[in-house]
Amino acid sequence: MKVTVCREAHFNAAHRLHNPVWDSQKNKEVFDKCNYPNYHGHNYNLIVKVKGETDPETGYVIDMKVLKEIIEEHIIQRFDHRNLNLDVAEFRDLNPTAENIAVVIWNILRRQIDTKFDLGIILYETERNFVEYNGE
Amino acid sequence: MKVTVCREAHFNAAHRLHNPVWDSQKNKEVFDKCNYPNYHGHNYNLIVKVKGETDPETGYVIDMKVLKEIIEEHIIQRFDHRNLNLDVAEFRDLNPTAENIAVVIWNILRRQIDTKFDLGIILYETERNFVEYNGE
Amino acid sequence: MKVTVCREAHFNAAHRLHNPVWDSQKNKEVFDKCNYPNYHGHNYNLIVKVKGETDPETGYVIDMKVLKEIIEEHIIQRFDHRNLNLDVAEFRDLNPTAENIAVVIWNILRRQIDTKFDLGIILYETERNFVEYNGE
Amino acid sequence: MKVTVCREAHFNAAHRLHNPVWDSQKNKEVFDKCNYPNYHGHNYNLIVKVKGETDPETGYVIDMKVLKEIIEEHIIQRFDHRNLNLDVAEFRDLNPTAENIAVVIWNILRRQIDTKFDLGIILYETERNFVEYNGE
Amino acid sequence: MKVTVCREAHFNAAHRLHNPVWDSQKNKEVFDKCNYPNYHGHNYNLIVKVKGETDPETGYVIDMKVLKEIIEEHIIQRFDHRNLNLDVAEFRDLNPTAENIAVVIWNILRRQIDTKFDLGIILYETERNFVEYNGE
Amino acid sequence: MKVTVCREAHFNAAHRLHNPVWDSQKNKEVFDKCNYPNYHGHNYNLIVKVKGETDPETGYVIDMKVLKEIIEEHIIQRFDHRNLNLDVAEFRDLNPTAENIAVVIWNILRRQIDTKFDLGIILYETERNFVEYNGE
Repeated sequence: MKVTVCREAHFNAAHRLHNPVWDSQKNKEVFDKCNYPNYHGHNYNLIVKVKGETDPETGYVIDMKVLKEIIEEHIIQRFDHRNLNLDVAEFRDLNPTAENIAVVIWNILRRQIDTKFDLGIILYETERNFVEYNGE
Repeated sequence: MKVTVCREAHFNAAHRLHNPVWDSQKNKEVFDKCNYPNYHGHNYNLIVKVKGETDPETGYVIDMKVLKEIIEEHIIQRFDHRNLNLDVAEFRDLNPTAENIAVVIWNILRRQIDTKFDLGIILYETERNFVEYNGE
Repeated sequence: MKVTVCREAHFNAAHRLHNPVWDSQKNKEVFDKCNYPNYHGHNYNLIVKVKGETDPETGYVIDMKVLKEIIEEHIIQRFDHRNLNLDVAEFRDLNPTAENIAVVIWNILRRQIDTKFDLGIILYETERNFVEYNGE
Repeated sequence: MKVTVCREAHFNAAHRLHNPVWDSQKNKEVFDKCNYPNYHGHNYNLIVKVKGETDPETGYVIDMKVLKEIIEEHIIQRFDHRNLNLDVAEFRDLNPTAENIAVVIWNILRRQIDTKFDLGIILYETERNFVEYNGE
Repeated sequence: MKVTVCREAHFNAAHRLHNPVWDSQKNKEVFDKCNYPNYHGHNYNLIVKVKGETDPETGYVIDMKVLKEIIEEHIIQRFDHRNLNLDVAEFRDLNPTAENIAVVIWNILRRQIDTKFDLGIILYETERNFVEYNGE
Repeated sequence: MKVTVCREAHFNAAHRLHNPVWDSQKNKEVFDKCNYPNYHGHNYNLIVKVKGETDPETGYVIDMKVLKEIIEEHIIQRFDHRNLNLDVAEFRDLNPTAENIAVVIWNILRRQIDTKFDLGIILYETERNFVEYNGE
């Protein structure tokens, strides 16, 4: 009997899409406004999904307060009010697209959450653009 | 050709998280504010998902009006404006966590919905905390 | 040049509508499901609006972090995960309708926020039911 | 390493549910208000989900601008501000239920999106009624 | 001590914008896609705001259940799943723009709600387009 | 008979709060995370409200398509995917707080919208923080 527990969190960050191997013309063609040199930003909405057996003593799969604190310590503290390209080590050589941010977040959280649980991520870059990743 | 039909419903209920086997110290440590003795409450948002073949005569998997009435009769009438711990029989000996509420709802609805359909539940306790259960 | 700064906060509480002067028949007729004896509950969404001159040094009317902390200390700490009828002194002799909760919150906050500012409250009891109060 | 990229779009359309093989009594019984003769309408919210490998050069599974343009050209241009029954060829002999609209949209988009990608559709007819289809 | 009580309701309707005095060229220029001949439609979200003194016996300005029933009987029953141009008498000679629909709804409700209360209307035609009217 | 027409728009931008007259210690105390040197960002949601008489020929106060284009040309084209501090002239010597952004937007739009109309602005910086300005 497996239930999926989902917790939403938020961070506000600047970023810019850019491939340093390409010239500026190619970057502009591919990334358009997302390549503007001085960065833009988003309110990122993050949903973390943890699937597992319900503990009969607590009725919890995982305590949402604990899940909230893991997200706070390992994601929000490092990403919130930051420039992803300049301030977050994982994006020094990785383009901070929504896809890559989701994979980076999943990899960070996977190390913090017991492997008996399945882990999934939904990341909203805007209300209309979002990505999902579950380690597949 | 299988389509999933989803219907959202709402109920407002009081609850309290408590394990009667534990002393009050342990209950407070684990359940924190959710263990306050006089109950608190939520606007629960429930999404019921029914997956099956589309009927060629109607174009429906299941008539949403019928699905709405099943949810109304078997869930809303019993849960809405109630104290889950005191008023709903299923929680007499079961801690009304979001996980357990979702499983209880799924079990109730599973008996009302033809087994040719797959059934899934999403239950929002708050905008930021929600659970999913599909009988797995 | 006056700008209105708005901050949203949340609390989850149980309540019951009841007039102790009336008999149970009259209470049931007027308050219906909201009069059920064992309480029900809501996720209350609160918007606090503060209107005033923008400070030229900061560009702030009021620092949203400060406003957030005032709401946290004086409203959320006292109302969240509580039973409004039993746990919150202001409702010992006052029916906790959305209207009365909004007025109580406004009165509490009015004492904490400089009178050079106008103050308004929006309180959502559900997504479809909400009230506004500005001390008028 | 597969990520799912999701893009939301909107169209406003009129429709009517009706089975021409049935008499008007049967149509009224089954489709109720949705069978009213002069049509009613909805703001349809469409989420298109594309799952595939992330391109290491761009960090994209699929460029969301490209996905947006495919949806715009093949769905929005043909469905928006239209009467589905009268103006959209696919519904000349097919009842425009949410289920059938989702399948029609999926079939149209499947021809426009590289088969190396998985494709899924979520279609909201109202905030409370929605369907999912992924070609299964 | 005046509080504003707000209740949200919904109706799904078809409409078309058209001025019969103008030729089709002029109608097309002004109303564009909204002038397509076979109608389109919307999920209209309606917020009704009633402002007045709180009754000390009930703690209500107006019972939300009563307000809900007034909206249901006088607006939803007449507008929901209808073609505004063809089925609703008020729009026989009045273009059903969001502005005009809001004024028509306000006029209908003004006759049903005690004049000791102020009345206001917000009408969402889409998530991004809405109008407000308060009889001014 | 005056109706208020409201149109929502969106832009994604980077910004940083900083007062160049203060030293870095004071800036950090006042602006906290919003003062981080490499910028952060937001999805800004903007609601523009235009109040006036309904034109009897069109049923419009102002054509929402025209209002949308004014916002697009004068706000979105200049603010979207930009760094407010570095790329938008109005913030060269003005701290881009939500309050100041709202006033700047109002001043820009006031020059584009006929003075027979009242103009108001709501600007969401996050879902929980927003400001209102109407030129008062």
